Amino acid sequence: MRLLPLVLALCLTAPVAFAAGKTTRIADADVAVAEQLRDRALKDDTAWDFTEGLTTEVGPRLAGGPNDLKGREWVIAKFKALGFDKVWSEPVTYPAWVRRSEHAEIVAPFPQPLSVLALGHSPGTPAGGITAEIVAFPSFDALKAADPASLRGKIAYVGARMVARQDGKDYGIGSTVRVAGPSLASQKGAVAFLLRSAGTDHERLPHTGITHFEDGVTPIPAAALSVPDAEQLERALARGKPVTVKLALDCGMDGEYTGANVIAELRGSKKPDEYFVMGGHLDSWDPGTGAIDDAAGIGITVGAAKLIAELPQRPARSIRVVAFANEESGLYGGKAYAAAHAKDIAKAVLGSESDAGADRIYKMTASVKPEARDAIARIAAVLKPLGIDYDANQPGQGGSDLSAVHAVGMAGLSLHQDATRYFAWHHTANDTLDKIDPEQLRQNVAAYVAVAYLAAQADGDFGSKPGAFAKDKDE
Amino acid sequence: MRLLPLVLALCLTAPVAFAAGKTTRIADADVAVAEQLRDRALKDDTAWDFTEGLTTEVGPRLAGGPNDLKGREWVIAKFKALGFDKVWSEPVTYPAWVRRSEHAEIVAPFPQPLSVLALGHSPGTPAGGITAEIVAFPSFDALKAADPASLRGKIAYVGARMVARQDGKDYGIGSTVRVAGPSLASQKGAVAFLLRSAGTDHERLPHTGITHFEDGVTPIPAAALSVPDAEQLERALARGKPVTVKLALDCGMDGEYTGANVIAELRGSKKPDEYFVMGGHLDSWDPGTGAIDDAAGIGITVGAAKLIAELPQRPARSIRVVAFANEESGLYGGKAYAAAHAKDIAKAVLGSESDAGADRIYKMTASVKPEARDAIARIAAVLKPLGIDYDANQPGQGGSDLSAVHAVGMAGLSLHQDATRYFAWHHTANDTLDKIDPEQLRQNVAAYVAVAYLAAQADGDFGSKPGAFAKDKDE
Repeated sequence: MRLLPLVLALCLTAPVAFAAGKTTRIADADVAVAEQLRDRALKDDTAWDFTEGLTTEVGPRLAGGPNDLKGREWVIAKFKALGFDKVWSEPVTYPAWVRRSEHAEIVAPFPQPLSVLALGHSPGTPAGGITAEIVAFPSFDALKAADPASLRGKIAYVGARMVARQDGKDYGIGSTVRVAGPSLASQKGAVAFLLRSAGTDHERLPHTGITHFEDGVTPIPAAALSVPDAEQLERALARGKPVTVKLALDCGMDGEYTGANVIAELRGSKKPDEYFVMGGHLDSWDPGTGAIDDAAGIGITVGAAKLIAELPQRPARSIRVVAFANEESGLYGGKAYAAAHAKDIAKAVLGSESDAGADRIYKMTASVKPEARDAIARIAAVLKPLGIDYDANQPGQGGSDLSAVHAVGMAGLSLHQDATRYFAWHHTANDTLDKIDPEQLRQNVAAYVAVAYLAAQADGDFGSKPGAFAKDKDE
Repeated sequence: MRLLPLVLALCLTAPVAFAAGKTTRIADADVAVAEQLRDRALKDDTAWDFTEGLTTEVGPRLAGGPNDLKGREWVIAKFKALGFDKVWSEPVTYPAWVRRSEHAEIVAPFPQPLSVLALGHSPGTPAGGITAEIVAFPSFDALKAADPASLRGKIAYVGARMVARQDGKDYGIGSTVRVAGPSLASQKGAVAFLLRSAGTDHERLPHTGITHFEDGVTPIPAAALSVPDAEQLERALARGKPVTVKLALDCGMDGEYTGANVIAELRGSKKPDEYFVMGGHLDSWDPGTGAIDDAAGIGITVGAAKLIAELPQRPARSIRVVAFANEESGLYGGKAYAAAHAKDIAKAVLGSESDAGADRIYKMTASVKPEARDAIARIAAVLKPLGIDYDANQPGQGGSDLSAVHAVGMAGLSLHQDATRYFAWHHTANDTLDKIDPEQLRQNVAAYVAVAYLAAQADGDFGSKPGAFAKDKDE
């Protein structure tokens, strides 16, 4: 019974034909179906079940670690069980990095342990650790400005602070320190690097994440202190005497690994070679179970696809869900996808990835051709009752894993999640299922299902073509 | 200038004499001084400075560990620097327990690490750990009712839940499981014990705490899972297949240790041998720095004493601040204090300890003789503007470390702190300075300074005598 109105709607809309031309159009009847899918999503738990299953039965999924393959096998089996028309993998090769243990302590003047996590791609310390004096900087710019003489033989510490915000923009502050700080400190002669975690919380759980050493720079051991430990270190430093810290990291690069992007597709009924693409990334950092980052992203988009799969017929275009490989260490899966599909970029009519947790979507933006703006506005109107505003003045590149494919010409649509809580748990042991609010998760699915259906049904494209969006600025 | 009204008040009140008799009275002029002390406390940061100093410069203070002595030395120096008239130590002997490392993981069917902390007084496992199937119980009563055949050779897990409440009463649920669960499980043949942490949070930080094995029971390794890990284990169990866990604890009893209660006194101007006693405990669990449990308790009462020390003259009776030894493993400091002072219990006119964090006091209760109820009500009136209600129908035993001395006859007054946030951080690595709100901390000092001053000035006693409060029920 629940399907009857949808069937009627589909029958009514099938014969409608739009005038040919550049302007992309969305039919009234498609909007009606999208609205029903949206409302159905608010009662559907496929996304929750997927996220619960992956985080419970596989758990942490460090790229290149033993759970990389396990995660893929789990997702492939789940995609097949959910009734996708086609499930396949596309290989992605990346360096593997392994974490065995980490330890930090203040040695003098106030001996005590510090909660610490090595950064991804950090080398280990010598077996006995590195013991050296701390030189502290309040920001990345202060480190930049530092006289190398002040750093030589010391452990550099950067204590930049982040504030929780809906748009999560302070992550730019923290991630800059984490990604570029160790390389810069090494260039200036530091023997190791510590940062105040790139996070907005006050838990004794450090935030890991990738770091990157510039070519020719000697990698130095680099780790994040939890926020309370960073503040403790700063209190010790505030007393004006030298503070000595011992850092012992057993971690490091571990050869090359070939994983894969796992792709599931609902084949389109009329233009099966054209597709809407959505998804999330399958890898996670290892201290947590990667629930908000990013099992939920795959779960949300799988949940959306599942509802479309239950329609009496497939939409005109295909719909793809991609579980991307190794986002965390450098967007390897996204780049491989872009490389593999660049030659057919016009077939990727629109893309949107979910990778900022599982809290409610509050804003939609898009990077599309001008003639598709009205169609985007029609999609936005379907999302409006979900509390989602459309900002037509900002680009929407489609998300981290789709940034590479957007860069080679795919039109993008971004569904911005409320990041107020996200950066409290991001990249920590606290990234676990209990942080997900099922109601907010369903709101995400409702938005994705409407976007996916309407993009797949739209009469006309969104402007995907080689090099179309090369001038997009970062959001 | 700030002191002038106080000086005047003291001059005016000195000649006042109350009628002799059983009823304890508090003079109007003393109330006026107490009100000024209260208001001054709301602008004073002695408590913060003490708490910041102890947690930064000493850090974790596990009883019997290397910081037991360091903590005492720090506190003795601080007491002397703050201008107390007398500072001394009274020896306390207790068993020492040492934590070296702990590790837990689900071995099958979903291999993954679990965040775990050994419980105090738990024995270690054999070097390779214990690997066994989990038998789960939702509550202590369910464990009690269990057929020993179901437990033999297994790891018992109890998943009792706590809800955050102002009065913290759910700690009764969690602490019962933690203290008595391992002994009971051992009696029924279990080889190890795990509990859902006795906490109200959802952080990946387990709550440690003492456990106790009954005489004749073989101690078994016992540890707490963080709440998210407990829920993860329950999700694995919910799938209906056997769940095997490996638990490896390197910890255990480590001989006998003699620490001390450290006592600071402002000597009374008229009845120096009689005293009001307040304080907190100096030891802490080792994963955090013991800020809310219980550096703040000493800090609050030191802050109160300091304001009284700044008056132009000492109050009639003495005022003691006690930094109790080893509360966490079994109230050793409190019991030693009671044993040492039982013979002079009538001299301890009233006592109140702070040991439920640093959030605001919302309620006052007292266990005193009936003839002192009016005096208690006058004290309560001074506290009322701080948002503190007086519940005359409940006992007030004075706090955990004073429970033993209350049991031998000391009148008690309890200043109940809002425990809504307390049991999220209690006994975890998260017990750090950043969890303390300086404004709420000062409200505590304001309450203690008024109580201490008025108890020291009161004309008449509060009923302390041998065995006076033997019939008090637990709060």
